[in-house]
Amino acid sequence: MTLKLYFATGACSFVPHSLLEAAGAPFEPVLVKLHKGEQNSPEYRAINPRGQVPVLVDGDTVITQILAIVGYLNDRFPQANFLPKEPLARAKVMETLAWMNNTVHPTFTHVFMPFKFTDKPEAQAEIKAYNAQLYRPMLADIEAMAQKAAKEGRPFLGGQDFGPLDAYALTLLRWGGFAGIDPAGFPALWSHVQKVAQLPPVARAIERERLQLNVYQPATGRP
Amino acid sequence: MTLKLYFATGACSFVPHSLLEAAGAPFEPVLVKLHKGEQNSPEYRAINPRGQVPVLVDGDTVITQILAIVGYLNDRFPQANFLPKEPLARAKVMETLAWMNNTVHPTFTHVFMPFKFTDKPEAQAEIKAYNAQLYRPMLADIEAMAQKAAKEGRPFLGGQDFGPLDAYALTLLRWGGFAGIDPAGFPALWSHVQKVAQLPPVARAIERERLQLNVYQPATGRP
Ligand SMILES: N[C@@H](CCC(=O)N[C@@H](CS)C(=O)NCC(=O)O)C(=O)O
Ligand SMILES: N[C@@H](CCC(=O)N[C@@H](CS)C(=O)NCC(=O)O)C(=O)O
Repeated sequence: MTLKLYFATGACSFVPHSLLEAAGAPFEPVLVKLHKGEQNSPEYRAINPRGQVPVLVDGDTVITQILAIVGYLNDRFPQANFLPKEPLARAKVMETLAWMNNTVHPTFTHVFMPFKFTDKPEAQAEIKAYNAQLYRPMLADIEAMAQKAAKEGRPFLGGQDFGPLDAYALTLLRWGGFAGIDPAGFPALWSHVQKVAQLPPVARAIERERLQLNVYQPATGRP
Repeated sequence: MTLKLYFATGACSFVPHSLLEAAGAPFEPVLVKLHKGEQNSPEYRAINPRGQVPVLVDGDTVITQILAIVGYLNDRFPQANFLPKEPLARAKVMETLAWMNNTVHPTFTHVFMPFKFTDKPEAQAEIKAYNAQLYRPMLADIEAMAQKAAKEGRPFLGGQDFGPLDAYALTLLRWGGFAGIDPAGFPALWSHVQKVAQLPPVARAIERERLQLNVYQPATGRP
């Protein structure tokens, strides 16, 4: 049975999207246009009542949540080594993956969609500004991880193989550009992300999503 | 090597705390007094720079993040069946666990610690009120899960064995009381949580934390 992935361009669904490409197994990618509100259509809500991507469908089973999908892809494609096999090493990768998912990603959501946390416009503006400031040191934490990997001669954030930490790091650094954060300010991470983007499976996911890796626009100083 | 768990009373660390009791293995519980700010002491920050509980220490390895700790305890105590062994079933449990951790739990954090998301007092009040309203339907989702488990004759939310979903559900419903939500409004969940609380290992964790299960205080109508 072919796996089906519901994804959106530039969204966090890039994590399972690039892993599926890396697994080398056939899958059916289904684009959900978030800017057109397709995630809220009755058809999509019937698949995922929470109205979010990613969704992985395997036969009759619908799996939502990046962490659940990553774990499942790791079980299903053991040869891809998405997660370390040794329990303690796997726990350390899961620690970073969980933090990216429950802390860094939601901090960006506060910047990008502050209306999810209050319906008052002034409070939205406060939330947006405050969380943009929180986001920067989080990227600095990931920069430190990229530096450590480089120093220890590990080609990827989770070890010897491309995995969810690399894909999430790419996504989170890219999102920083929308929050006015220059990726070049995190040199080890930015160089890691550019290298990862050139891996053939990752490049295929990037091409399908038509992603521009660096979306940062320096202020021109003109009105 | 004895495992060490840093936990706080009534916090989300209850999830690994009760699982460790259920595993039946000796462990060293270390209380961190959040109300005294012990999570921000230099000593604690040296263990977990993010200043949070839970932290599990195994020999030289420090593991933070509930999802990573649960996965590790599941690897280390396979006979406890904390997570299903079959990949698709495990993915479905992980889906709910990830959602509790990255959505329900943070929604409560907005109610309980709105200052984490803005430093402006008015915006904090908005965030608090708005997220208290978001929290209720999330508990209703967990109520639906408890109803489904009861209907299907499953004794626990994740299957035949006590596991992280039961411990997290207990914690999240209990927190609801602090947000003015009466647990009795979710009858299947409330009855499940009361049953779970009486399991001997869970009762031991509750006793160590000196937890009151129902913290809801009905408004008296008097000023
Ligand atoms: N906790 C979810 C988060 C998923 C999520 O945030 N998806 C976003 C895209 S990055 C989405 O679908 N947003 C659409 C919307 O909120 O309307 C996971 O880990 O999968
Ligand atoms: N994402 C973390 C969340 C941990 C967390 O929220 N811990 C809270 C208690 S429930 C804490 O330690 N708060 C102390 C503080 O923020 O000062 C996890 O899954 O372990």
